[in-house]
Amino acid sequence: MAAPGVGGHALAPFFAPRSVAVVGAADDPTRLRGRILAQLLKGGFAGPVYPVHPTAATIQGLPAYPSVGATPAPADLALVAIPSDRVPGVLEECAAAGVRSVLVYSGGFAEEGGEKSQLQDEVAAIAARTGIRVGGPNSVGFLNIADAVCATFSPAIDFDALPAQRQAAGKRIGIVSQSGGLGFAIFNRGLRRHLAFSHVVNTGNEADIDATDVLDFLVEDPATGVIAMFLESIRRGDRFQAVAAKALERGKPIIVAKVGRSEAGQRAALSHTASLTGADAVYDSVFRHLGIIRVDDQDAMLDAAQALSLCPPLAGRRVGIVTISGGVGGWMADTLSGQGFTVPALSAATQAEIRTWLPAFGAAFNPIDITANAMENDHRARSLETLAAADEVDAIVNVSSLAADPRLPLERDRLAALARTSTRPILFYSYPLPSPAAADMLAAIGIPLYTSLGGVARALDALARYHEARQPRPDAPSGGNGAAARAALDRAGGNLCEYEAAPILAAYGIAAAPSHLARTASEAVAAAARLGFPVALKVQSPDILHKTEAGGVALGLADEDAVARAFAAMDAQVRASHPAAAIHGILVQKMAPRGVEMIAAVVADPGFGPQVSLGFGGVLVELLGDLAMAPAPLATATVERMVGQLRGARLLDGWRGAPPADRAAFADLASRLSRLAADLGDRILEIELNPVLVHPAGQGVTIVDALIRQRPKEPT
Amino acid sequence: MAAPGVGGHALAPFFAPRSVAVVGAADDPTRLRGRILAQLLKGGFAGPVYPVHPTAATIQGLPAYPSVGATPAPADLALVAIPSDRVPGVLEECAAAGVRSVLVYSGGFAEEGGEKSQLQDEVAAIAARTGIRVGGPNSVGFLNIADAVCATFSPAIDFDALPAQRQAAGKRIGIVSQSGGLGFAIFNRGLRRHLAFSHVVNTGNEADIDATDVLDFLVEDPATGVIAMFLESIRRGDRFQAVAAKALERGKPIIVAKVGRSEAGQRAALSHTASLTGADAVYDSVFRHLGIIRVDDQDAMLDAAQALSLCPPLAGRRVGIVTISGGVGGWMADTLSGQGFTVPALSAATQAEIRTWLPAFGAAFNPIDITANAMENDHRARSLETLAAADEVDAIVNVSSLAADPRLPLERDRLAALARTSTRPILFYSYPLPSPAAADMLAAIGIPLYTSLGGVARALDALARYHEARQPRPDAPSGGNGAAARAALDRAGGNLCEYEAAPILAAYGIAAAPSHLARTASEAVAAAARLGFPVALKVQSPDILHKTEAGGVALGLADEDAVARAFAAMDAQVRASHPAAAIHGILVQKMAPRGVEMIAAVVADPGFGPQVSLGFGGVLVELLGDLAMAPAPLATATVERMVGQLRGARLLDGWRGAPPADRAAFADLASRLSRLAADLGDRILEIELNPVLVHPAGQGVTIVDALIRQRPKEPT
Repeated sequence: MAAPGVGGHALAPFFAPRSVAVVGAADDPTRLRGRILAQLLKGGFAGPVYPVHPTAATIQGLPAYPSVGATPAPADLALVAIPSDRVPGVLEECAAAGVRSVLVYSGGFAEEGGEKSQLQDEVAAIAARTGIRVGGPNSVGFLNIADAVCATFSPAIDFDALPAQRQAAGKRIGIVSQSGGLGFAIFNRGLRRHLAFSHVVNTGNEADIDATDVLDFLVEDPATGVIAMFLESIRRGDRFQAVAAKALERGKPIIVAKVGRSEAGQRAALSHTASLTGADAVYDSVFRHLGIIRVDDQDAMLDAAQALSLCPPLAGRRVGIVTISGGVGGWMADTLSGQGFTVPALSAATQAEIRTWLPAFGAAFNPIDITANAMENDHRARSLETLAAADEVDAIVNVSSLAADPRLPLERDRLAALARTSTRPILFYSYPLPSPAAADMLAAIGIPLYTSLGGVARALDALARYHEARQPRPDAPSGGNGAAARAALDRAGGNLCEYEAAPILAAYGIAAAPSHLARTASEAVAAAARLGFPVALKVQSPDILHKTEAGGVALGLADEDAVARAFAAMDAQVRASHPAAAIHGILVQKMAPRGVEMIAAVVADPGFGPQVSLGFGGVLVELLGDLAMAPAPLATATVERMVGQLRGARLLDGWRGAPPADRAAFADLASRLSRLAADLGDRILEIELNPVLVHPAGQGVTIVDALIRQRPKEPT
Repeated sequence: MAAPGVGGHALAPFFAPRSVAVVGAADDPTRLRGRILAQLLKGGFAGPVYPVHPTAATIQGLPAYPSVGATPAPADLALVAIPSDRVPGVLEECAAAGVRSVLVYSGGFAEEGGEKSQLQDEVAAIAARTGIRVGGPNSVGFLNIADAVCATFSPAIDFDALPAQRQAAGKRIGIVSQSGGLGFAIFNRGLRRHLAFSHVVNTGNEADIDATDVLDFLVEDPATGVIAMFLESIRRGDRFQAVAAKALERGKPIIVAKVGRSEAGQRAALSHTASLTGADAVYDSVFRHLGIIRVDDQDAMLDAAQALSLCPPLAGRRVGIVTISGGVGGWMADTLSGQGFTVPALSAATQAEIRTWLPAFGAAFNPIDITANAMENDHRARSLETLAAADEVDAIVNVSSLAADPRLPLERDRLAALARTSTRPILFYSYPLPSPAAADMLAAIGIPLYTSLGGVARALDALARYHEARQPRPDAPSGGNGAAARAALDRAGGNLCEYEAAPILAAYGIAAAPSHLARTASEAVAAAARLGFPVALKVQSPDILHKTEAGGVALGLADEDAVARAFAAMDAQVRASHPAAAIHGILVQKMAPRGVEMIAAVVADPGFGPQVSLGFGGVLVELLGDLAMAPAPLATATVERMVGQLRGARLLDGWRGAPPADRAAFADLASRLSRLAADLGDRILEIELNPVLVHPAGQGVTIVDALIRQRPKEPT
């Protein structure tokens, strides 16, 4: 555990060094190795800088040293841009000299494959052995704005903008990007929007320091309030989750763009569930659980970052709109409605108050249409103040025309007071591109200004989702007899049939349908008589995954004769079609009463651990993939919320005259399943309860089929 | 019909006047009435300008005239900004003086309601009576760039940018907005993107000239190649459709933002179908049918306009990506995949060719990753040329870093040649904001440059959808016995029961399920015996819309006894629960074999005429509103395409082991229904065939229930 505050963080010498050595520094700032030194100096680094050069006495006017060991004191950070095959040697030198961290810009490592990958393994090994921390290789470097450390050769730094950054309003945004120049591209777009940044970091090939390490540093960094990440992959899912959970607890929002929605290969499917989900859905699941705002575009990232940097929490989804244009106000209402917000009519009292000063051709309901006349009066400020005081909406959006708004400067103090005191987010939108003066003024008083309708909607959505994620979580269930479940897993093979799954589920209080494994027809008949008719027969074989297609399922058998005949036929047919299959017997199961068909499943993600999926059976899941996924374990309240967000949720409310279904029983089942999955994460690859019939309220659920797949056992 | 070319268009004197009078002109250009004259002059209007002022000898240096009748010749256009109550008088004066058109900026008309609305009616009446064309009132005016007519007081005109506009590459974009300043806001955003415009028009209150009139003018205008509209309402749906169809035929794309997705009230529902759709869905239906690209944001409008202005047609959905950054290239692939495009692997031959010059750490498959090294070689141009020649993709997207790209100027000629000769769209995307020089260069050679991933996807989607809409349409069906159908409608009341609907459907070759209307139990028994068991009984009453809830449906009656008992019970129950209902009898219908449940319905939109809706029954339509809608009539091929776009389409392919369903029979049914709806558009309000069971291929469909609602008859 790092000490609180960044000073004690393991990466403090890397990101906030007291001294910097530049290995391979050159005089010519137009060449890469000259530019690294030049930009460090231009960025205003305040500590000693040691150019390292085999022969030169000075570089760019600074005394140079022949090696990192020859500098007056060991540098906290060495910047390295030399051919890749020489990097391991320099790292050893640095470690020996007491240098605490190294940033390697050089390419020629794993990105080239072949023996170059071994060179990168060597870098990682040196870091691990010596404790020196290494950024890169193949990195564009980083910019630490708060501490004036410009350790990048990126040509995209506007140095003139940096001092103002240190005064800008709002929480500062730290950027972490796994893709070279993209972080700086996002940074520069953010500057145009007057956003305030703390760091811009490219992690390169991540031989040692990876994106999660940087995330942890930024979570601990008091100068950073919001974190934006561009990710291609997350190497250590468990650690990422721990760090992100810490960020959520501390109220530092994380916004992530994650590449791979289209290319994430669907895992080779051994069952239906596996084919319904894919690695990308796991990222969605984990991100949602951790309150991470996932975005698909640079603009969307900045839309969210801007609001999260400047606004108070958004506690609900009611929005008040104040507009100078009826048409554009309506367009804003359409856009917000499409994103799950409401634009509710204001109360009669509030409307009456507004009508005391609004002309007749305006509109007081919501959107409040103050008309173009508001260019000549104070109706904008007045409307915003009224909404801020009225407690009828959760956020306020102003639609203005800020290309040439003569009123804005006159309203500065009132708007600033509003921004300072409002407990509700207030966002401005200008349908013409705003004048620089208007944009500057709003930035100075901390009101976020948007120039796209979708941007406002995305920003509010990010605020709302983040606030929801920050609410106290109900406790996940505890209990369950893990030892009994493990013993049952020990007894079984890799693919567990329904009858083998039953005791494992039972160890967590999940009851299977009444059933009996029969080896003979007469045993089946006796069991059926005991269970009560009608019954179903299901072949039990770890080698037959598709029972119905194999002729291994018979349903609705109404009497002893039917059971005897079905048993014989099934036994013959399955043995004929699957001569090599191990057949454990035929399960006799009481037919369940009707219910809403649902699915509850678990898939163990190799990086992020067990994920629970819930959904409705039938066309919704098979045609639309309508599943909700979240990391195990889940409280029943969480399950209920997930089910409520499914497109088929209304099926449980009493569909087509049916009685309402037993949501509570399903939530209890799924929650217990999630506890099982969490406890046995080291053993279980996959569980699928499909279908689960949800009966009318008070009548519980029936698991009609259950499948468990466990990890291959270590050879003993 | 207007003559070809704009010169002969009825609005030519309005939009391209040879002379302009300015009524109420003032000297002071900082005041509204001074600004109108000043901007007209500043905009470079070449013809005579006549300031009209009761007393002044000159205004802004021009000779002034005491009235519009006193000018040297009657003006083609008079610009009017005077108090609203004086407007009708001035219009009469203008008409008397031979002025051909008037643009009224003044507010104080229908937007204020009450007696001010009457003032607007007066304006409309004068226009209708005298033939003078009137723009506005309450309009910001228009800018005609091609002819240098600046007839607006909008403060948002960058006059310095106008001359360059006349040289810009690409088809020129005409903007029509029903909302005041929004058109100019869109225009100015477009200028920043180097787009070329012909006109910017605000139609104001549309007392006479409405948005459809302006659309027609722009369709006829040779200077306009693409039309962008912001609409709050369309007053004459039939005329809008005719003009938009003409635009489609001539290859002039129309892009529309239409407000009202959230507020468009759902029509008061008398049946399920009506509650499933709403006015906004009708706009979607009509726009799609006419190849109109509907957008939700100013940016999306410009994304589409830019591509449609500059690119050749996009004939498919395969995209090749050339990228300087692996991560951003993957992000682009994700984004395009999410919009329905594919990014297919290139052929082995093409990959091999690329590998002859691409370094090992690049990637040749697609995206082609030319790596940051491409800042120092010609791999971008080379890759684009290779893709343009390879015939393996339909569009090409380049991902570059154009903040400071030293290669771009060197590649100008090659890229210009590509843009000129490629038969496939080539779009550039820069992840950092591009330098002005890069943006200027690409604009000059006609390559559209985007700065957002979503923008590229939206642009390509607009190109693809427009191309699809331009394909030759299969002929809609003809035939049907309209006279017989009308006669049957004459005989029936407002709500037609199934047995009354049957002959109307039959007149268009749509067969109802075999059935007989029985008045007595014995009649029902005899009919059932004739039809064959099992049968269903359904009460037939125009006053009972929900038969099942009323006890008016009995299914699966297997023998004569069952029919007799069910008839008696139903008769008693329905008469008890609905004592006032007119009961025509009970329909005996042969039970249909199983099939996929679908819906085919018609709703007459008051503005746009009959719209046909198709969908799957059950949860898909009821939970998700998964319906496809299009204006009647529809060819069978069109129905098949619509069905293919439903989320449930796979249900017809042989769902869960069922045989494939008879798509052709359903398409035939829906197409015939659409012909009926089109022919009887003056009579029919609504038709609902729900469910229609689609049987296995070759076995046809069965209509299980049918409902028709007709317009109230004129009192005779």
